[in-house]
Amino acid sequence: MKVNNKNYRTVWMEGNTVFLIDQNLLPFSFQIFESKTYQQTCRAIKTMIVRGAGAIGAAAGFAMAQAFIHDSYPDFVSKAKKEIEATRPTARNLFYATNRVYKAGLVSVKNAVIEAQNLADENVADAKKIGEYGSEIINEGYKIETHCNAGWLGFVDYGSALSPVYIAKQQGKKVFVYVDETRPRSQGARLTAWELKNENIDHLIIPDNAGAYLMSKGEVDMMIVGADRIARNGDVANKIGTFEKAIVAKNFNVPFYVAAPLSTFDVDCKSGDDIIIEQRDKNEVLFQTGPNENGDIQKVLVCNPGSDAFNPAFDVTPAEYIKGIITEKGIITPNEKNIINIINTE
Amino acid sequence: MKVNNKNYRTVWMEGNTVFLIDQNLLPFSFQIFESKTYQQTCRAIKTMIVRGAGAIGAAAGFAMAQAFIHDSYPDFVSKAKKEIEATRPTARNLFYATNRVYKAGLVSVKNAVIEAQNLADENVADAKKIGEYGSEIINEGYKIETHCNAGWLGFVDYGSALSPVYIAKQQGKKVFVYVDETRPRSQGARLTAWELKNENIDHLIIPDNAGAYLMSKGEVDMMIVGADRIARNGDVANKIGTFEKAIVAKNFNVPFYVAAPLSTFDVDCKSGDDIIIEQRDKNEVLFQTGPNENGDIQKVLVCNPGSDAFNPAFDVTPAEYIKGIITEKGIITPNEKNIINIINTE
Repeated sequence: MKVNNKNYRTVWMEGNTVFLIDQNLLPFSFQIFESKTYQQTCRAIKTMIVRGAGAIGAAAGFAMAQAFIHDSYPDFVSKAKKEIEATRPTARNLFYATNRVYKAGLVSVKNAVIEAQNLADENVADAKKIGEYGSEIINEGYKIETHCNAGWLGFVDYGSALSPVYIAKQQGKKVFVYVDETRPRSQGARLTAWELKNENIDHLIIPDNAGAYLMSKGEVDMMIVGADRIARNGDVANKIGTFEKAIVAKNFNVPFYVAAPLSTFDVDCKSGDDIIIEQRDKNEVLFQTGPNENGDIQKVLVCNPGSDAFNPAFDVTPAEYIKGIITEKGIITPNEKNIINIINTE
Repeated sequence: MKVNNKNYRTVWMEGNTVFLIDQNLLPFSFQIFESKTYQQTCRAIKTMIVRGAGAIGAAAGFAMAQAFIHDSYPDFVSKAKKEIEATRPTARNLFYATNRVYKAGLVSVKNAVIEAQNLADENVADAKKIGEYGSEIINEGYKIETHCNAGWLGFVDYGSALSPVYIAKQQGKKVFVYVDETRPRSQGARLTAWELKNENIDHLIIPDNAGAYLMSKGEVDMMIVGADRIARNGDVANKIGTFEKAIVAKNFNVPFYVAAPLSTFDVDCKSGDDIIIEQRDKNEVLFQTGPNENGDIQKVLVCNPGSDAFNPAFDVTPAEYIKGIITEKGIITPNEKNIINIINTE
């Protein structure tokens, strides 16, 4: 998508160099991180220069290709593979990527590079498909609320929840987005707003508290959010606050959609009850970081000194609150039968 | 209530001096503002050194008494009355206070001072009564969620939503409070947490997004919030996010209570539909203020530069979402009949 009117992906490779948008600096500074070696790319994954399952997978694939370019001796590339996989051991897309590029590299170094490029291109194609299916349910003039950032920054391009918005806009539809701030890490206010601003899509940042007010006034036509993990029965784990929004949306009959690639489905996970919610550092709630009037980045305390905070990272929205899940193979009503069906569709 | 283990009211008068806790400096600095003249007290009201209907009313009463002490000549005190009433012309308690003290002052200066003290004492007594009624529905070990700050800082003492918590604690009950951060102005994270910390009441600050997660885990036994205005039919205008929380609480069968003195009821307002919601400055969403690691107060941008925000100050929770309204005369189910009855009770 566009940044300052130029097209970018979050991660790409030219020659033996991997380029990544440094997401740690967004939205206050836009810089491209250049990585010449697989070790540097590993560091970029570890330090969250790149984030989101799709983008991490692509970066890992490129890192694997960089390793082959450097030295295709079996001991070297298998050691490199383990190092790459250790950067974010809970990211399933990462293993999928390293395995595919590793296999291709056993044929030839050129094959490894092609496979890594294919991986990135497939991620883009899937995200675009999500956008195409999703755009079919966006009517002219729709006002859409979204939570957190499920835009192109977490993918190689297009994103999941925002992809339907981008495609609808490309189709010439008028769209408007209410962006939940998404405390405590404010991914909505920072990243989603940054994406939408760069794409010239009308939007307003709202406090997470304002959803019910807006829906009660008929100001929200639909909600679309992303997903971190979807259980076999259609329960969706996503950023804290998603469940809250789904309850409020149901109260006002506002259709609540989840957009996610099929790789997000975990059919080994029977239901949301099996998903353990990570508790994150309380300091994410207690402090906020941003530039002061001189542009110096400052970390400030925004709570009562001495009080503690509780910071659950995710919540689980039961399938019954979700009108549909938008995937690269179409939109389904979330239940076990539909999920197994769509995963087995060629 | 206690600050550093010493008892305080938000505002009090000794001799001709009015003392006010400077709420603009909380929670990062605790300072008492001393006002020697009614003009200085007017400035304190205007600059929000004092906030909340009850505390503003008491401060206005004291200011009126200060005017009589300075000069009881009719032209002077009637001019002073107008000046005091112009500080916050939308605060109804303020006019109630100036009228009462003015009338008393026409008899004698001493009477004016006594009446101003009575006003403050009545505010304390009413808030304590709210606490006593409210504490009856708080069981041992309850975990209570609250939104915004409806504690003693908005009253002369005790508060509304927090008064039942304080009284329950004084009765020896174990209580715990989940404090909604309450973006954008973070009155929960700043003021409610400050109050609870000083009263040694166990609490945790939570992002506004975490309510549904906690309730889904059975972690919240009840919610109590304050009110800015209650319509004749029981609809409640309160800080943005209150309606959101009420919907989520209803979804999980968590009893949702509003605590407010009878002066909050506006029987001329038929229903919540007649309440106009003020839109506040977008910069309250875009920026956050607090001390950095050196203790210097900094204002930092926490959103994407160039994106706009929408900042509704209040929302209206329909009566059907509210289990009960806790007043100084008892707890009522919110509907027109009960409201008219309780207001007319001697």
